[in-house]
Parts: sequence; C-alpha cells; structure tokens
Amino acid sequence: MLHLISIGPGDLSQMTPAAQSALQSCDVVIGYTYYIDQIRPLMSDDTEFVLSQLGQEMERADDAVVRAANGRTVAMISSGDIGIYAMASPIFDVLREREWDGTGEDGGPEVTVHPGISAIQATAARLGAPLGHDFCTISLSDLLTPWPVITKRIEAAAWGDFVIGFYNPRSLKRDWQLDYALTELRKHRPDDTPVALARNMTRSDETITVTTLADVDPNDVDMFTLVLVGNSQSYFIGNGMATPRGYVDDGA
Amino acid sequence: MLHLISIGPGDLSQMTPAAQSALQSCDVVIGYTYYIDQIRPLMSDDTEFVLSQLGQEMERADDAVVRAANGRTVAMISSGDIGIYAMASPIFDVLREREWDGTGEDGGPEVTVHPGISAIQATAARLGAPLGHDFCTISLSDLLTPWPVITKRIEAAAWGDFVIGFYNPRSLKRDWQLDYALTELRKHRPDDTPVALARNMTRSDETITVTTLADVDPNDVDMFTLVLVGNSQSYFIGNGMATPRGYVDDGA
Repeated sequence: MLHLISIGPGDLSQMTPAAQSALQSCDVVIGYTYYIDQIRPLMSDDTEFVLSQLGQEMERADDAVVRAANGRTVAMISSGDIGIYAMASPIFDVLREREWDGTGEDGGPEVTVHPGISAIQATAARLGAPLGHDFCTISLSDLLTPWPVITKRIEAAAWGDFVIGFYNPRSLKRDWQLDYALTELRKHRPDDTPVALARNMTRSDETITVTTLADVDPNDVDMFTLVLVGNSQSYFIGNGMATPRGYVDDGA
Repeated sequence: MLHLISIGPGDLSQMTPAAQSALQSCDVVIGYTYYIDQIRPLMSDDTEFVLSQLGQEMERADDAVVRAANGRTVAMISSGDIGIYAMASPIFDVLREREWDGTGEDGGPEVTVHPGISAIQATAARLGAPLGHDFCTISLSDLLTPWPVITKRIEAAAWGDFVIGFYNPRSLKRDWQLDYALTELRKHRPDDTPVALARNMTRSDETITVTTLADVDPNDVDMFTLVLVGNSQSYFIGNGMATPRGYVDDGA
C-alpha cells in the first residue's frame, strides 16, 4: 500500500481526519524533514521515518514505490494538497515508467491519494473570499517547465481575468520571474487590484500582506510565499479581499 | 461571531478538525437542507438549524450576517470549500454593502473562514494526479456572469493549456454551454486528452467516468458533476489520469 498524504498548510487541525487515519495506518513515512516534524506527534514509536531534503523528487518517489511494492505500508507526505505542485505527480510519473496498471497483478502497489488544504485555500480563508470567481494557479518555477510555457499561462490568465495564485514565485536563483508576471498583469488589470502576499499560513510564523498591483514589491516575496492576485472585480474588505461571484459589467 | 464553514465533498472524514470544532462552537447553523443533514450528527440537541433551498444566496447571506450581528454564534455551511463557488462570496458582498470594516466597532460580526476540500480536489485524488501542473476552475453558470466573460475564460484556459475543472457544467436549463466549451477545447488539445466526469465524490452514490476529449458526452453530465479536462501532457494511468509536473517539449 502506498498512501499519498496531504498534511495541509501547517497546523494539524487543517489536516483531514481521513488523511490522519491513513497516515497512522502506515509503518514507513517518507517526506521532507520539516514536514515529518509536523506529523511526528501523530505517529507511534515504531514508525520508520525516511527523511529527505528539498529536491530529488523522482528518487524519493521511486523509493516510495519500491518500498510499497515490497510489502510495506508507505506514506509519502507533502504539505498543502499533495496533488497540487507536490509529490503526487512525481509518484505517478514513476508508476507510469514502471507500467503500473493499478490492478495489483503487476506486483505494483495499491495507491490511494488523500487530498488536503492547499496554500491558496488557506490564504483565501485568511483574506475573506478572494476565490469567489474563476481562478487559476501558476507555478513560476522554470526548473522543469520551459519559460515560454509559463509566459503563455501568465498571458492567458491575465487576458482571461482569472484570479491567480502564483506558487513558487521567487527563490534566490529565480529572482526576476515574478516581476515579469506582475508587469504583464498590470497591462490588463487596474492599479488598485488587490494583491496578497501570504507566507506560512496557519503556522506559528505566518505573515500576510495585502497591497495593490501597482504597489506590490517582489522583494517582499520568497519561496515560501503564495502571491494571490485578484481579478478586475476584486475589492478590499476589512483587512483582506473578496471577489464577487458575479460581474458588474460584461468584462469582455 | 460568523463562521463560514466548509464541509468538504461529502464524507465527514474529509472535513478538517478546525472546521468541525468551529461548527460545534455555533448555536445557529444556516445552509441547504441536504448539507445540514450531513453535519447534523456533529451537533448538539439544542442547535438551531435554519434550512434553506437552492437559490436566494443573498437573502441567506444577509440572514446569517444579521443573526451574527445580533449576538448569535452563527455557522454558514457550504459543501466543498466555502470559498470556491459557494457562500463566502455572497457573505462578503453583503458585508461590503453594509460597509463592514472587520473591526467590530461598526457592530458588524467577527467573521472567520474555514477552508475545505473542494470537488476538484476530491476528484483529483480519486483519479491519481491530474492537477500535477497549472490548473484553473471555470463555472459554466451564466446566471450572474455574462456569457461573453465565460467564453473568454474558456478560450484563455484552452490556449494557455491549463488543466480545467468545470463547475456547474450543466443543468436542465443550461444544456448547451458544456458542449460549447468542449468544442473550443477540441481546437487546442489532442482527441485523446483525458477527461473525467465526477459526481458526488466521497458520497455513498459517487460515480466517476474517465473518457477522452473526443468521446466525452455532455448528456452524461448533470449539475452535480465536476468535469475535469487534462492538459496536452496529461495521460491515462490505472483507472485514472495524471499530469506530469514538467513538459516534454516547450508546448508553446
């Protein structure tokens, strides 16, 4: 058995009971050291933990599949929703390479995915109702995706007036992509469009900044930040923002 | 206090502990009859339930805000994530009309939002890893959004090669919009692009159908179905589908 388990944005009260009980059924847990520290209180003393550092996702996915195929009950954990910019995709890429068919007859593991609260949802909840209309997520990491694909997505989302959640907006080595995206968005949306910078939502060190598309400063953003940009109808309310479920004009 | 509470896709094991305990702190619960039946086992005998039918979202939102402003601890519940095509947006639209500032000094209620598992996530978990790359959600309901806005979104998402989750894809009165969207997508993606039709995920009557963009039949879709369309790189695996986290070519 291989369980792909979402631990949510941070605080364990945001992790579903289904994900928690699946995790507790496992005898091996694989994940980043930082995430394992979060779920360790849920586990028994005889749990085996396989700690890993950032990167080497394919090797880690392969390790999880092999251990599960060998008869262990394995948990692969990710923060947020494991299906959204996390380990579910590398796991299925490994299963595909191994011509896994899901029947169990090929000796491959049974795989179950447990969804969770992604960063964009934890951020939206803190802000009010920014995802009140159609939204999209875009990762600004060009490690595995060619930059022309990413720019096309940014243009499409800007033109289509989607509320946008930018994941992986900036790192030490990727320091200009977010600025590019914001410059593109400024061609399509008002200067006063609400923008939020949300870092480590629901964790003890969470911070959230609400600003405008004109004023947002990429230097306030790091790799742990989700950047949420409203659509043309989004508005500031209280300390946060919301997006109406309808349109005041045809917006076309 | 007004708690906006996500009950998740159906089974209570998919509702976060934070949302459950916030719900249990409330003495009035407002929501559709069908959703109230789902959470009733969590509540005490002296909970007041305000049952409503589909529609009249603004009236229901106003009722919740007034009751909370009058000193009750009120839960407004929605299935899935209350922030995604659900009641959070109407609530904030009501608060905006009332010039609520979130400080409590205007007599307005304190408002807390509790995120949950949306239909697209429950569907993705059943399928494998279809949200492995950038995705968007589009509601095909033109009750409050002009159809030209929706067609623009469909074109943008098709051109931008987003994985797409269509919410509100079809009802008795809206029977041609999904066909329009699929026709547009067929101009941009291969015939064998994976498509899933997911109905009532995690509920006892859940059904899920995996097919292709060429073969999908809008007649198999109703208002309780989420339609998930892969991007140009998505592939079939086991009984489901997945999307690679990277691109095999530049896709541009």
